[in-house]
Amino acid sequence: MVPGWWMISTVFLHFCLMQSTMSGRVLVWPTEHSHWININSILEELTTRGHNVTVLLHTASPSIQYNQAKGIQAEFFKVPFSKEFINEMFDEMFNFWIYDAASLSSVQFWNPYFSEVKGLCWDFTDFLKQICDGVLKNEELLDKLRQSQFDVLLSDPMNICGELIADKLGIPFIYTFRFSFGNTIERLCGQIPAPASYVPGIPTLYTDKMNFVERMSNLLLYLCQDFLFYEFGILNWDPYFTEVSGRPTSLCEMMGKAEIWLIRTYWDFEFPRPYLPNFQFVGGLHCRPAKPLPEDMEEFVQSSGDHGIVVLTFGSMIKNLTREKANLIASALGQIPQKVLWRYSGETPETLAPNTRQYNWIPQNDLLGHPKTRAFITHGGTNGIYEAIYHGIPMVGIPMFGDQPDNMVHMKAKGAAVVVNFNTMTSQDLVDALNTVINNPTYKESAMKLSRIHHDQPVKPLDTAVFWIEFVMRHKGAKHLRPAAHNLTWYQYHCLDVIAFLLVCILTSVIITYKCCIFCFRKCCKRSVKKSKRE
Amino acid sequence: MVPGWWMISTVFLHFCLMQSTMSGRVLVWPTEHSHWININSILEELTTRGHNVTVLLHTASPSIQYNQAKGIQAEFFKVPFSKEFINEMFDEMFNFWIYDAASLSSVQFWNPYFSEVKGLCWDFTDFLKQICDGVLKNEELLDKLRQSQFDVLLSDPMNICGELIADKLGIPFIYTFRFSFGNTIERLCGQIPAPASYVPGIPTLYTDKMNFVERMSNLLLYLCQDFLFYEFGILNWDPYFTEVSGRPTSLCEMMGKAEIWLIRTYWDFEFPRPYLPNFQFVGGLHCRPAKPLPEDMEEFVQSSGDHGIVVLTFGSMIKNLTREKANLIASALGQIPQKVLWRYSGETPETLAPNTRQYNWIPQNDLLGHPKTRAFITHGGTNGIYEAIYHGIPMVGIPMFGDQPDNMVHMKAKGAAVVVNFNTMTSQDLVDALNTVINNPTYKESAMKLSRIHHDQPVKPLDTAVFWIEFVMRHKGAKHLRPAAHNLTWYQYHCLDVIAFLLVCILTSVIITYKCCIFCFRKCCKRSVKKSKRE
Repeated sequence: MVPGWWMISTVFLHFCLMQSTMSGRVLVWPTEHSHWININSILEELTTRGHNVTVLLHTASPSIQYNQAKGIQAEFFKVPFSKEFINEMFDEMFNFWIYDAASLSSVQFWNPYFSEVKGLCWDFTDFLKQICDGVLKNEELLDKLRQSQFDVLLSDPMNICGELIADKLGIPFIYTFRFSFGNTIERLCGQIPAPASYVPGIPTLYTDKMNFVERMSNLLLYLCQDFLFYEFGILNWDPYFTEVSGRPTSLCEMMGKAEIWLIRTYWDFEFPRPYLPNFQFVGGLHCRPAKPLPEDMEEFVQSSGDHGIVVLTFGSMIKNLTREKANLIASALGQIPQKVLWRYSGETPETLAPNTRQYNWIPQNDLLGHPKTRAFITHGGTNGIYEAIYHGIPMVGIPMFGDQPDNMVHMKAKGAAVVVNFNTMTSQDLVDALNTVINNPTYKESAMKLSRIHHDQPVKPLDTAVFWIEFVMRHKGAKHLRPAAHNLTWYQYHCLDVIAFLLVCILTSVIITYKCCIFCFRKCCKRSVKKSKRE
Repeated sequence: MVPGWWMISTVFLHFCLMQSTMSGRVLVWPTEHSHWININSILEELTTRGHNVTVLLHTASPSIQYNQAKGIQAEFFKVPFSKEFINEMFDEMFNFWIYDAASLSSVQFWNPYFSEVKGLCWDFTDFLKQICDGVLKNEELLDKLRQSQFDVLLSDPMNICGELIADKLGIPFIYTFRFSFGNTIERLCGQIPAPASYVPGIPTLYTDKMNFVERMSNLLLYLCQDFLFYEFGILNWDPYFTEVSGRPTSLCEMMGKAEIWLIRTYWDFEFPRPYLPNFQFVGGLHCRPAKPLPEDMEEFVQSSGDHGIVVLTFGSMIKNLTREKANLIASALGQIPQKVLWRYSGETPETLAPNTRQYNWIPQNDLLGHPKTRAFITHGGTNGIYEAIYHGIPMVGIPMFGDQPDNMVHMKAKGAAVVVNFNTMTSQDLVDALNTVINNPTYKESAMKLSRIHHDQPVKPLDTAVFWIEFVMRHKGAKHLRPAAHNLTWYQYHCLDVIAFLLVCILTSVIITYKCCIFCFRKCCKRSVKKSKRE
């Protein structure tokens, strides 16, 4: 599966990079849960390569566990809420999203739920601002950070403020980014072109091949998302950014200053689309070859015989399902001949069959890389999907929120997954989906094809990410990759002022020509009338 | 100048690539002169890595010299003209371009010269078609090529027909490409987005920072070039492509099937602009560290003392200048304290000073990499510019035709060059330009900055080019990088059908609302009139 040259070259490139780079100082403005898992891989690699890495961490962080043994340090700051408060807030948001929002029509969404959504967003913004204040209004901490003379700040724009902290410290910053709804942040702040005709925005569930109605919906989604970004992003954040930076600025202007955007996908996953030289696609950078499983787990896996195993997880954020849903899933799992390893920390379902084992935690990457693994049931998080791609495992997707439904559309379109609706699925739907991806060889072939594409890159994704972070440290930025589009207004960018001017010119010349013709015609008519009268 | 890690990693990556790739069969559809110099670097690297390389070569090729000692083979085919005929044709074209066309206003260009330009283009198309016929209407040769079972065809789209030959042989093809006027081929056939607001088209001489008038000119240039492409490309070639392929097709459709576009620039040279995942920027792939000079040349160079040397060449296509122009240049060179090495096979100018030596050929890359080199006087060809970038040498540009004037605008905008007008320059202009780039340290600093950017890439340009050629051979293509835009018409791509539909909907609803209001208003008025009448 892994072409030989890549493994060998990676080892050497790794060795060469280690030999050549200076020791830099990296400050990190992280995000929680799966985002952290991804960024943490970069940080561990940075420390391995001799860089000093410091994570800015608030005292109520619910999921960020940094590896001190790997040399990662933390700088703590206080926030006026507890870990429990954050966990409850996230649970409330996800429950609304999974169970309530998913069953709404768009009309219901805008009215009366829009006010509820709006309320949730404003609350979340206030919450984020309080975290920002923890750093930006703490002069003592800022002074300490300034004295540390960091070379670069690594930030996830999901957690706004990294760009403001970089601005305050006068250092360049790099984004590690997955997506924004309707590609709004990438388009409006990153200046990446995204033609609505073949670049589908999340959450349309479209592929890059759209019919007329889909293209129209996609275009309207872009417009709606731009409006929502104005409503929840610009109106909320611009005054804050102006206040903190001490000069007139905006969220988008500041975001647009990112030296590099490390996008957490690649063309094994993405539909091909235009991008800019300061966008680097590093999907799957956290994946690595499988390590041996714990002894009892390996024993259970081996007991599956030729049928093999199925791995099931809903990611780090979903710890509980409703009893009904858990039983539905457990009963489906009991109907397949494979053994199943289910990461689930909720109450054990009554219908759990003997072929299924429930775990609080599983070594997901090692299991997906096990030769006996036949399928992966996933909520469609990017990290999990990439581990499946890395190891060439077909998927059954049960997406819930965020980018998950669209992620699974990508995998389905590329022939490596079957998708089941979380809200409406029956046990039989899940059994059918599993039997399809396990027994129909085209799914395995497609997954293996994606795996080959993933492994056959000139540079390993993690090395690409680290290369560009080190590049920014070496050169104090990457301005040679920054498009001049950042200096244009939206109407200048689309040449609308030029087009309007040309239309006015054309219209004026048409009117003048018309008037001249009329004038000449009348002159001629008058003359001929006078002449005929004289005659 | 070269960061250590790159040199070391390149050696290892090279080693790894050599170990891992299978031996493939590469067919080449080349172009003459500087284009050949560039593609030849790739071919020599491919043979070094164990691939079989065969160049399709017509019997009248004036400049292509393939290195049999490096294992490159040629397959010859006949054309109905001689080498002398081609040389004369090229000379005529370049003389028109350099001396006549350059002094024309745009009005003169369109009338009466447009008919002359049109005549030249049609003649050139006929010439190209005769070359194509040499292969495509030679069934014996086609059969032989089919039997050779090539894995990929490498083509320069400047020489149309590579795509047709690949189609006939049923193999994937890759382009090695520099530019098209107004980015027309890249935009219309490659589907790369090029916003007219900040992506200047050749030959506008604009940078990526344009004012209103420049943006308007650039937009109009795009439209004009699209018209010219229709006139000289589509009308000329579509019937030929349809006839040869035996099915309805077009030049653009066939060009759009290129698996990878290897673009012969990089962000050290280009203004940052959007691109697609099947576009790879490999500018400077032919550059390499300087080798020692021939003994007498080294002696001459060393005799320059602290003043150092200046290197002057107008490329492989300009062998003669007018006597007046040659004397003007020679007299300017005599006024600087540096020693000058001038590659010029024309008659020795009378004003040639003792500090200047004239050569029929110079080891340009080795001279530019010599520690005594202070400046490079260049016609602005991409190959020469890249050698100057590679070695960090500031430039004086005397561009003549094609992309050369725009190339020099790039270097000037990046602070590494001064540009002199070939048609209007005086000796003093050239002396001033040379003194500026040699004595003002900002030019050397800018050239060194470009050099650092060039050397600080994750993979060496030549390795990138070879990687993607091998990728296409390994995977029988690179379809996962092909944007779905290729399936859309131009109005679908820009969502013009959607916008038109939405405008009609809006207009209809406005009209209906207006009519309803009028209707209600009249009803109300009538009623109140009747009422008042009754009263």
